[in-house]
Amino acid sequence: MSANQLEASKDSAGERLPAQVCRVEVVALRPCVDDGAWPVKRELGDELTVEADILVDGHDVLAGVLRYRLEGAAEPGWSEVALEALGNDVYGARVRLEHLGRLRFTVEAWVDSFAGARRGLAAKWKAGQDVEVELRGLARLITTMASHATGAEAAQLAAAALLIESGSAAMAERVDAALDDTLAACIERHPDRRLARRGPERVCVVEPVRARFSTWYEFFPRSTGADGRHGTLRDAEAMLAHAAQLGFDVVYLPPIHPIGMTYRKGRDNGLTAQPGEPGSPWAIGAPEGGHTAIHPELGTLDDFRHFVASARALGVDVALDIAFQASPDHPWIAQHPGWFMRRADGTLQYAENPPKKYQDVYPFDFECADWRGLWRALRDVFLFWAGEGVRVFRVDNPHTKPLPFWAWCLAETKQRYPDAIFLAEAFTRPKMMHALAKLGFSQSYTYFTWRNSADELRRYFEELSTPPVADFLRPNLWPTTPDILPEPLQFGGRPAFASRLILAATLGASYGLYGPAYETLAHEARPGSEEYADSEKYTLKSWDLERPDSLRHLIKRLNEIRRSQPALQRNDGLHFHRSEDPALLCYSKTTAGADAILVVVNLDPRHRHAGRVTLDLDALELSGAECLQVHELVGDSRQLWQGASNHVEIDPAAMPGMIYRVRRLGRSEHDFEYYL
Amino acid sequence: MSANQLEASKDSAGERLPAQVCRVEVVALRPCVDDGAWPVKRELGDELTVEADILVDGHDVLAGVLRYRLEGAAEPGWSEVALEALGNDVYGARVRLEHLGRLRFTVEAWVDSFAGARRGLAAKWKAGQDVEVELRGLARLITTMASHATGAEAAQLAAAALLIESGSAAMAERVDAALDDTLAACIERHPDRRLARRGPERVCVVEPVRARFSTWYEFFPRSTGADGRHGTLRDAEAMLAHAAQLGFDVVYLPPIHPIGMTYRKGRDNGLTAQPGEPGSPWAIGAPEGGHTAIHPELGTLDDFRHFVASARALGVDVALDIAFQASPDHPWIAQHPGWFMRRADGTLQYAENPPKKYQDVYPFDFECADWRGLWRALRDVFLFWAGEGVRVFRVDNPHTKPLPFWAWCLAETKQRYPDAIFLAEAFTRPKMMHALAKLGFSQSYTYFTWRNSADELRRYFEELSTPPVADFLRPNLWPTTPDILPEPLQFGGRPAFASRLILAATLGASYGLYGPAYETLAHEARPGSEEYADSEKYTLKSWDLERPDSLRHLIKRLNEIRRSQPALQRNDGLHFHRSEDPALLCYSKTTAGADAILVVVNLDPRHRHAGRVTLDLDALELSGAECLQVHELVGDSRQLWQGASNHVEIDPAAMPGMIYRVRRLGRSEHDFEYYL
Repeated sequence: MSANQLEASKDSAGERLPAQVCRVEVVALRPCVDDGAWPVKRELGDELTVEADILVDGHDVLAGVLRYRLEGAAEPGWSEVALEALGNDVYGARVRLEHLGRLRFTVEAWVDSFAGARRGLAAKWKAGQDVEVELRGLARLITTMASHATGAEAAQLAAAALLIESGSAAMAERVDAALDDTLAACIERHPDRRLARRGPERVCVVEPVRARFSTWYEFFPRSTGADGRHGTLRDAEAMLAHAAQLGFDVVYLPPIHPIGMTYRKGRDNGLTAQPGEPGSPWAIGAPEGGHTAIHPELGTLDDFRHFVASARALGVDVALDIAFQASPDHPWIAQHPGWFMRRADGTLQYAENPPKKYQDVYPFDFECADWRGLWRALRDVFLFWAGEGVRVFRVDNPHTKPLPFWAWCLAETKQRYPDAIFLAEAFTRPKMMHALAKLGFSQSYTYFTWRNSADELRRYFEELSTPPVADFLRPNLWPTTPDILPEPLQFGGRPAFASRLILAATLGASYGLYGPAYETLAHEARPGSEEYADSEKYTLKSWDLERPDSLRHLIKRLNEIRRSQPALQRNDGLHFHRSEDPALLCYSKTTAGADAILVVVNLDPRHRHAGRVTLDLDALELSGAECLQVHELVGDSRQLWQGASNHVEIDPAAMPGMIYRVRRLGRSEHDFEYYL
Repeated sequence: MSANQLEASKDSAGERLPAQVCRVEVVALRPCVDDGAWPVKRELGDELTVEADILVDGHDVLAGVLRYRLEGAAEPGWSEVALEALGNDVYGARVRLEHLGRLRFTVEAWVDSFAGARRGLAAKWKAGQDVEVELRGLARLITTMASHATGAEAAQLAAAALLIESGSAAMAERVDAALDDTLAACIERHPDRRLARRGPERVCVVEPVRARFSTWYEFFPRSTGADGRHGTLRDAEAMLAHAAQLGFDVVYLPPIHPIGMTYRKGRDNGLTAQPGEPGSPWAIGAPEGGHTAIHPELGTLDDFRHFVASARALGVDVALDIAFQASPDHPWIAQHPGWFMRRADGTLQYAENPPKKYQDVYPFDFECADWRGLWRALRDVFLFWAGEGVRVFRVDNPHTKPLPFWAWCLAETKQRYPDAIFLAEAFTRPKMMHALAKLGFSQSYTYFTWRNSADELRRYFEELSTPPVADFLRPNLWPTTPDILPEPLQFGGRPAFASRLILAATLGASYGLYGPAYETLAHEARPGSEEYADSEKYTLKSWDLERPDSLRHLIKRLNEIRRSQPALQRNDGLHFHRSEDPALLCYSKTTAGADAILVVVNLDPRHRHAGRVTLDLDALELSGAECLQVHELVGDSRQLWQGASNHVEIDPAAMPGMIYRVRRLGRSEHDFEYYL
């Protein structure tokens, strides 16, 4: 009983006696995010494992159930599955997640008097004690319980009670009847739950598998035109096919809306665009429309529909970039001037982070008098594109908009489209990133982009792959984005690109590439910054996808490996192993019923490194294995490893990482033959 | 906004819009036990440090307060103290705990528009930008805020606003006025908290310092008679003086109530007592009375009052043993037959753990029809003895009585006697021990009694000395009890007794001894058990407190050291240091404003051990110290140690542990002279 319950139950004498004596206590119901303030996240087809510490005084036996119910389901009732005692006062049960949406769950537990009396009888009988009184007590209990049953069961219970208390039957026969498993099973179906204790309700949000396991390819459709022309969505379908062919399942387009002319940015974020310069797609809004319109040079809404249909035919989702800000030419500025802040001189308040000013972008005033109208209009942007078949949204800078807005807006959208997925583009402070994930974003950009050393990577991914973080935040790993070209890639050459690619593809179940730039090893930055030189954000680019040193073959192979290896499709089951040479990062991914995957990456793009790695065989569920067969999946080679400790040598110029499928020798007939 | 808040605020359109836009989010308010379901524990005079993660979108500045209120206080309002930004979105504040009782606390935070605008102005002014519009905006803000102020303050604000927006004053003068600290302080006193976010309320139970730092001496008053006579409470006052002289501050008496005759236990837990045998004090109740009566052979209630008064004069608390069970002769069995369970044959249900039976003890039926009457009667036992001046209760086997009973009964008692302290005697499963501590027991017996190796001790005490456990469970360490004589003490000789004593006295802020037996090294057990041979539970004992190998001098010295060293009076600040020889356990205790204490104990009672210990100087707040002066407090010797790593040698036959006061060389004039 919590203190709150105590207070809610003052009895007539003014004392705070509880209303009834419920001796069972439910503690630490889990999984749980922030005391149950936010849902935990799982994916369709997963098993949700629920546990709680359940306590009762003395030696009584507890029974209980996991209760669960899909919010808004046609059948309003709760389903139940029996809790299992896991030892040390922990009880648990599992439920298969078969529907998208919000699953409410809790546990309920009670004292199982019959089980306790049965255990006592068995112990005394075994110790040779007289059990006459115990048998009579048990019979009395069964008679009471029979009153809850009907028909054949009631008759069965009554007959059992009669035999057990019968003075004429032999003692052994009566004891056998009392300890009979069929009797116990029958009684278990009619528990006395009047004094049951129910835990607090928790929520599990069930999202599509793609919320966890997804492979993103980002490109600017306007760069897909032939001979330097402005590309259209029709042109972009060739790039869509290219991405699908490389094994990507999400194609992500920067904003495709009309781009403002006022304060339009020029090349390299120049303050004024030259005539003919295309501007930044994030300066959203022009006379042609705002967040629900298509930039005329890209085509029409019909072209977009064709693009989405082509993507669907390839098994690819289209992800749109939702950036809630307006260019000075956005139609809403005239239609809803109250949605924007004004400065003391009456002019519109542009974005700023003093002393920096961004005159080309007006933020919305989420606290304005008509905030309800604004919030609904912004929600309707999601609903509009969802209506056009878009289910994946990359949300720009959510940390600069109110948290309660997102909680409401994402819930509203998911209520209508429970298969919608939202990626939070918040490269900001850790607690803000966590808050956004908790309140409903399905995926989050991460600090992976700046984690380079073995120790940094180990610590960060241990945090991401275990609760509490793993229960609410799903990482999506990006080696680069159009905004970020990290320094190691500016100077590390092709080996650095390949190494970061292998890390992203194997450390996280979701990863993404700023595709054409990454494939073609684009590495030139504006001096002293992480911005690309001549960034595609402000200009049209032409990428040479056919260049001989392109990474496309490695990307394709990695995506094939990810699709074939279930262990790489989850974020849990990650384990780091000891490595003699700190430049060689060694880790494994495992998941039930699938092969273990072991990855060794040389983090130094310039030098060959060699050393011994020592596997934690328990983590690989290969305890005691004397001989392992490892199948390197990138280069398709096979070796035998002797036990836990093995020599690895990696030349980054050839291939900076190894991805091994690890098995006990002789596991399948085929493999056995291979080594004979 | 939590999911619950979302649901509570459906607007007219049926959408779940919040009622207003509150952009601030309060997460993870701490300290906190089980999501705030239970209070945290602190002691009078402590500072309670409260922290929370507080988030807002964008670049706004947050302000906030810690709010606190003593339940039942004469002034019903909340006190507030400003939150400080600690970095990384963490905010905190401290409050000194000056009253016993339940302190409710929470935090409240809001966007500080003035601070944000002021920061922006300063940044732009520093960057040489035009700030005319900013000054006008700030003046407007001040004018709004002036409407909350009165009198001189209102005038001050109005004048400031006038100057800041004045077109005639120089720009620098206007900026100086806007950035003036007096103005900021005045505005800070009138924050706009209409859109503030308040965190959940938590409770901190403030108990006497003795709840944390106490030194217990347990003895059977009936064994204090001269020449083998049954001792009386008057005789026992000599033992009280003895305990006080050794430095104990709690004297704990096993039950002092009339002892039943029916099924009275004989020597060594014999099933039948011989005539004249005194029986077990835990078989409570006889025609002379029950839980509020005094066993006639011990004396009268007046004798008890005299005992309590004598204890008080010595600065010692009397702890009574509250064991809620009845002998077959307890008056309640006739007066309240409904308070006891009956077997199927109509006889009373004695205690049992099948196949074991305890016919001399009847448990109460906490779920009986008259459970309210029973619960009140049991609570009244505490209130009766509290009325006689008893403030410390050792509660027998609380884990065999319902948890909600304890939650209610302890709260009821503490409401009337907020200085009451309860020690839970539950040697049971860890989660049950935790639950009892959470629901209100002030102190808990621990597994220390069975933790012997360095690794066991380190892991267990790291758990006890850090949150979450340290926030709700206060350990009380007992090397032995009348129920438990652990094997290492049966066979380890005097060095084992001394070693376990030093560990208990220094690892925990509270420890206790089954005094006369421990002092005199009683080590004979019933074969194959942890029970004392000829246990004092069933007989009168005569202890030779003057024997030459008695531990009393060491006990006295240890208790003096505990009283003089604040670091030993707390459970936090414990740190284990590296030791070459695993038999030498090395740990330190530190607390703010006091000397660090370093303890090295030889865990092997039979052999001299020597080796190097390497101190973590950061943990000792002696980072970088090249030379340490260590003062060994048991033997009163001084040494100089060179840096972190030093050789230690301990002969257990002489003294199995060293307790060093550690200081940087030359800290005080006296010490400096000493070494010159």
